[in-house]
Amino acid sequence: MGTPKGLEIPDAREEKINMSNIKKLKCLICGAEYQPDEVRYTCPKCGDEGILEIIYDYSGIRKNFTKTTLKNNTEYSMWRYLPLLPVDDTEKIGPLKVGWTPLYEAKRIREDLGIPNLWIKDDGRNPTASLKDRPSAIAIVKARELGEKIITCASTGNAASSLSGASASVGLKSYIFVPQTAPVAKIAQLLVFGSTVFAVRGTYDEAFDLSIEATREFGWYNRNTAFNPYMVEGKKTVGLEIIEQMNFEVPDFVFVSVGDGCIISGVVKAYKEMLTLGFINHLPKVIAVQAEGCKPIVDAVNGGGTVKFVKPDTIADSISVGIPRNRLMAVRDVKELNGFGVAVSDEEIIKAIKYLGTIQGIFAEPAGSTAFAGMLKCLQEGTISKKDKIAVLVTGNGLKDVESAKKAGGKALIIDPNLEAVKENLK
Amino acid sequence: MGTPKGLEIPDAREEKINMSNIKKLKCLICGAEYQPDEVRYTCPKCGDEGILEIIYDYSGIRKNFTKTTLKNNTEYSMWRYLPLLPVDDTEKIGPLKVGWTPLYEAKRIREDLGIPNLWIKDDGRNPTASLKDRPSAIAIVKARELGEKIITCASTGNAASSLSGASASVGLKSYIFVPQTAPVAKIAQLLVFGSTVFAVRGTYDEAFDLSIEATREFGWYNRNTAFNPYMVEGKKTVGLEIIEQMNFEVPDFVFVSVGDGCIISGVVKAYKEMLTLGFINHLPKVIAVQAEGCKPIVDAVNGGGTVKFVKPDTIADSISVGIPRNRLMAVRDVKELNGFGVAVSDEEIIKAIKYLGTIQGIFAEPAGSTAFAGMLKCLQEGTISKKDKIAVLVTGNGLKDVESAKKAGGKALIIDPNLEAVKENLK
Repeated sequence: MGTPKGLEIPDAREEKINMSNIKKLKCLICGAEYQPDEVRYTCPKCGDEGILEIIYDYSGIRKNFTKTTLKNNTEYSMWRYLPLLPVDDTEKIGPLKVGWTPLYEAKRIREDLGIPNLWIKDDGRNPTASLKDRPSAIAIVKARELGEKIITCASTGNAASSLSGASASVGLKSYIFVPQTAPVAKIAQLLVFGSTVFAVRGTYDEAFDLSIEATREFGWYNRNTAFNPYMVEGKKTVGLEIIEQMNFEVPDFVFVSVGDGCIISGVVKAYKEMLTLGFINHLPKVIAVQAEGCKPIVDAVNGGGTVKFVKPDTIADSISVGIPRNRLMAVRDVKELNGFGVAVSDEEIIKAIKYLGTIQGIFAEPAGSTAFAGMLKCLQEGTISKKDKIAVLVTGNGLKDVESAKKAGGKALIIDPNLEAVKENLK
Repeated sequence: MGTPKGLEIPDAREEKINMSNIKKLKCLICGAEYQPDEVRYTCPKCGDEGILEIIYDYSGIRKNFTKTTLKNNTEYSMWRYLPLLPVDDTEKIGPLKVGWTPLYEAKRIREDLGIPNLWIKDDGRNPTASLKDRPSAIAIVKARELGEKIITCASTGNAASSLSGASASVGLKSYIFVPQTAPVAKIAQLLVFGSTVFAVRGTYDEAFDLSIEATREFGWYNRNTAFNPYMVEGKKTVGLEIIEQMNFEVPDFVFVSVGDGCIISGVVKAYKEMLTLGFINHLPKVIAVQAEGCKPIVDAVNGGGTVKFVKPDTIADSISVGIPRNRLMAVRDVKELNGFGVAVSDEEIIKAIKYLGTIQGIFAEPAGSTAFAGMLKCLQEGTISKKDKIAVLVTGNGLKDVESAKKAGGKALIIDPNLEAVKENLK
């Protein structure tokens, strides 16, 4: 208490909580259960497919984590949900302020589209300008708890730049694998943050496999999505915030763009945990949105549930993932909540960037506007109605990919510095 | 009350304050005084040089604006300082969440440089990624209070993109003048936000003059720095936040990068007003930092006080201002607080970008790292000591200018997707 807000030390850390409320880690495939100190990444029995889910002691948590404690909590960052996070040593939390991004009522879009119950979560307002700052903040806590000094990940770009920034802020060395085609802004971030950057001649999927190999070879700590079991926990905080910022009202539909499928599982986990804890009384439908040129999860949730790998072809680099690593969990989660999938064209993604910017002043990168484009499509097709309560997640800022923004934005008028030129162009 | 936090309606607006606490507007040159409804821009007697200062009814304000009311204020944005802002109709405040950006204790820099009392304010965390979102938020309030539908400004880039985003969020049309050389990311923002963009073949200084001409010709509402008297009030909120986030402790030195000189006057006004209101008991020294290739204000404050215009030549586009429009006020303010000026080379600016990123995970654009570079120089030269309490303002995010970031960051290692290539590059 007494710490001025906005400083790097959240109030939560002053209480010096010593151990997380984790009860066990459970394999998604075989159901084997582990204690946190028994396993670092995936299930030893099932290999890389055996993603572990984190299960907390919810009956213990609900004693000291209530609507009242939340209301009185002045820590306006992702760490306000500390009882539901895998943090054993709060001293290991980094200084960057992550989370508690704005949830906008988006009044002008509501009026323009005649949808009075729309909310837009702008998660591009995080430190490195994407939602991925949330899981990366968890990754550096876990690495430091283990005494690791070097951290690595493979990424389409945002997970990388977030991990790179978070690592820099606490002095961890980082080795990053990205596809060579990642947007220049994301690579520039990595380099400014001092990472060693391997720009791989290949896809994200190849970079992912290589980073796992390198992790095994060199013993680095690995933050990869759906390999490191704690990343869903970080992504979950965006869902927890939406729930609290909507005053515990549950939307009918939550739209989430999907690459590996880890963010959507985080959102679903947020709702399920808040239901378990009695903060809400039912679950929303959660909708997976992908680009038409890369929609393995959409096809799986709308079809028989099996994910078929694809060769990605989309402008939305952050979700250009042909082999979705969290596919099993993501498909299960969307189906369990009676959600569905929707695919949008690159053209619709670009149009959504322009629409969000022009009408509401929200600047999204392509994968950031994809969920909104999916919502628009569902409105047009009638799969959702104008009266529905709709939450849409924007996952990254448009400054991350200026080339795509330029496609959305049109052209400046280049003029000589005189009034005649202005008049001429106003005609 | 009861509004969930992070939604677009700050608590403050629920009180429906009807008129600001402005007492008068006073001309910087001739001292003439006006009521807000008597004048829109500069002093009618003195012309464009006659910038008006906003003076509030401080004795009235102090009755209801205290450390206690601030502590209990749950509006974590620039609007928490509403009693000190020129807002007559709180309904006209836009939805984007501006302000209450993080003030970092910057522990790793403190340790690395042996300066235990350093704070860094990261104002690149605003909606369009620069401090300029603060004055632009004020501009759209004033335009809407007047019933204006079209707004304009000239800008090196950040004032433009912030005004453009703010305008989009409330449905104002915007005409923007920028030098053709503005970074592509800033122009991309303008276009996505739907502005009509005049990219002027010339300098910022020429774009400025042209925008004033166009304002007079077409009757648009003008947001230009040091022309519109309310912009300093928006910029002031960054200073108010630093004061509150430092728990009303006054630093010995506050470092601010300077272009037109409007931000530094805002910071000084924040400290002076908080002194008047009894929140603090003395004033800091405020240091103006400019690039060596464009340092009219630095030369003036270190010399006789007269500003000589220059032809700008610096990588720091946001402060590439040869004719500083707020020169009289800025020079007066720095001198009054016993501050001084310091100039840094473009190389030092680029180095500071890399240092801030690598050691602390803060990504600054060139003008954003300039104040930090100036602080480093003062440490080296001994004009400040390692024991001093130092606050440094970072004014914009590095994603705004990726070309400069690339100069700071070095190169990625381009490799084939196999372990041998990784090993080879690790040697």
